[in-house]
Amino acid sequence: MKVLLDTMSGDAPPREIIKGAIQALQETRDSDFEITLVGPEELNRKQVQDLQAGKNKSRISFLHASQTISMDDTPAKAVRNNPESSLVKGIKALHDKSEIFISSGNTGAVVAAALFNLGRIPGVKRPGLAGVMPTVKSGNVVLIDIGATTDASPRNLAQFGIMGNSYAKSVIGKENPKVGVLNIGEEQTKGNKLTKEAVDLIRKTDLQYVGNVEPHRLLIEPPADVVVCEGFVGNILIKAFEGGAEGTIGFFKKALSSSVRAKIGGLVLRPTLEKLKNQLSYSQFGAVPLLGIKGIVFVAHGRSEARAIKNAIVNAGEASRWDLPGEIESEIERVNFVDG
Amino acid sequence: MKVLLDTMSGDAPPREIIKGAIQALQETRDSDFEITLVGPEELNRKQVQDLQAGKNKSRISFLHASQTISMDDTPAKAVRNNPESSLVKGIKALHDKSEIFISSGNTGAVVAAALFNLGRIPGVKRPGLAGVMPTVKSGNVVLIDIGATTDASPRNLAQFGIMGNSYAKSVIGKENPKVGVLNIGEEQTKGNKLTKEAVDLIRKTDLQYVGNVEPHRLLIEPPADVVVCEGFVGNILIKAFEGGAEGTIGFFKKALSSSVRAKIGGLVLRPTLEKLKNQLSYSQFGAVPLLGIKGIVFVAHGRSEARAIKNAIVNAGEASRWDLPGEIESEIERVNFVDG
Repeated sequence: MKVLLDTMSGDAPPREIIKGAIQALQETRDSDFEITLVGPEELNRKQVQDLQAGKNKSRISFLHASQTISMDDTPAKAVRNNPESSLVKGIKALHDKSEIFISSGNTGAVVAAALFNLGRIPGVKRPGLAGVMPTVKSGNVVLIDIGATTDASPRNLAQFGIMGNSYAKSVIGKENPKVGVLNIGEEQTKGNKLTKEAVDLIRKTDLQYVGNVEPHRLLIEPPADVVVCEGFVGNILIKAFEGGAEGTIGFFKKALSSSVRAKIGGLVLRPTLEKLKNQLSYSQFGAVPLLGIKGIVFVAHGRSEARAIKNAIVNAGEASRWDLPGEIESEIERVNFVDG
Repeated sequence: MKVLLDTMSGDAPPREIIKGAIQALQETRDSDFEITLVGPEELNRKQVQDLQAGKNKSRISFLHASQTISMDDTPAKAVRNNPESSLVKGIKALHDKSEIFISSGNTGAVVAAALFNLGRIPGVKRPGLAGVMPTVKSGNVVLIDIGATTDASPRNLAQFGIMGNSYAKSVIGKENPKVGVLNIGEEQTKGNKLTKEAVDLIRKTDLQYVGNVEPHRLLIEPPADVVVCEGFVGNILIKAFEGGAEGTIGFFKKALSSSVRAKIGGLVLRPTLEKLKNQLSYSQFGAVPLLGIKGIVFVAHGRSEARAIKNAIVNAGEASRWDLPGEIESEIERVNFVDG
């Protein structure tokens, strides 16, 4: 298994990325697990040297890429204008089912580069990013799409349901996943035009559809294992969860200075609070797979530091044990409403 | 000033609602501040008796309404079929600028009843609900629309900006409010078709537009005082914030049993945690105004218990000191792109 890692992505390239790569190699015992660092070769070699990769060095290789894609570029333009970028070269280097590409760069550019260089799985209209979130009471929930396809159609949403279902079955290990649609109310009459039409389509499939899911139930005990939403809405949602968690911790810290009792409690609890903050941050989620394209591509959060990259690599490695593109292709083919 | 209060709305009618009304009368010193309980008169009179309103009883009056609108009805149908409901009768009873209507019922039905019985302010295309949220570092922020108008157009969003601006100036007391658009990235190239077109329209106004605002910045230190969004997205957002907060507290409580140190800290901090949970819940926000209609209508959260209703009444009372519909009318008229 080989991970192609974009070292020129995210907020602190390439050091934090390479640090994460070395941590991942330390954590995985499998000697077949290798990492190719995609980026300026000389710079990357020097970082590996500096970070003292030790005996893990033998499992690291290099793919030179001279250009970098920034967060400000328009995705399609950025990909077109930077054929020598770490993003484009890394994705182009995917040749085998055992190879995975991970970038913590501009999500839009990753999607554009994947569509342009790998292409969509036959029958899939638009790709979707599948986020996996921890819940307080009922394990993990898959949320798709969290930002690959804005302005998605009802048919796109129904396909997100099919792809999310495949992912939940294989990678998350849910036997017969329950599928719901993210909505502003549980009642059938609630929602916008898009969600109502998407629900009509999903009901025509053999997915185990369980109804609308409201955002405030998602992190506690959601009624579904896979929750489908439009890419713009899904991206707003995960950033709002992050904001809600950060806000809560912020208000909590403020409250901790409100009384002597609270101050003492705060001192005792500082390590617990820090642990919690990490648990709820993006870095814990690792990376999210871009489903619907012919290849295995993961997007990590731009603010990812070494630990997040390490998690991303380890999680992505897990996912590559399944032939996700193959599974999705047969599922999309089987559910015939797509072309109906 | 008179508050018309829908006692048959929310999850625990009419007791919690009437309890909140009595608490509000206890808190407000103004003897001109009166409350009319709209609902089954006999039942409401009995509750006032049971709850021992004492000398505040003289400031309570009754408007009989025999029907109730449930959360499951389709808004337009519910309003049409229930002319004797507390919702419809209460809204119809608004005759004067000093009168306010508050319901914690079905948001869609409140919007439909207000549009049908009060009508829109001239020039306003669609109404918007303006939520006011506390932030950790920079006071309150106005978020509009949080659920009145799903499937809103770019023009609707621009008008939400104008109405939110009026609200922030008068009720919140921001002198020259900064206006932003809720988006999935801060860069100008980010967003969907709707946000991009809305930004183009808002730039043509004299609103102080400051750019895109990402959800995770909203609760900490948002760059804007007024943040504009589509109704479906805004409703998802506030429910995600609530979910993020509940999730954080849930994970925190789990973490508190992880070690002896954490257990001790948790015991000491229990009162602080409870306070925080209340602070971040809907009940603290009180009620949100429905802007764009000819009259002052507030919507409280369905899960509102007495304290939330009390806050709703007190906040709404504050807002009625300004002639919001009048201000919005002149602002909409002044900004002429609306009909251009």
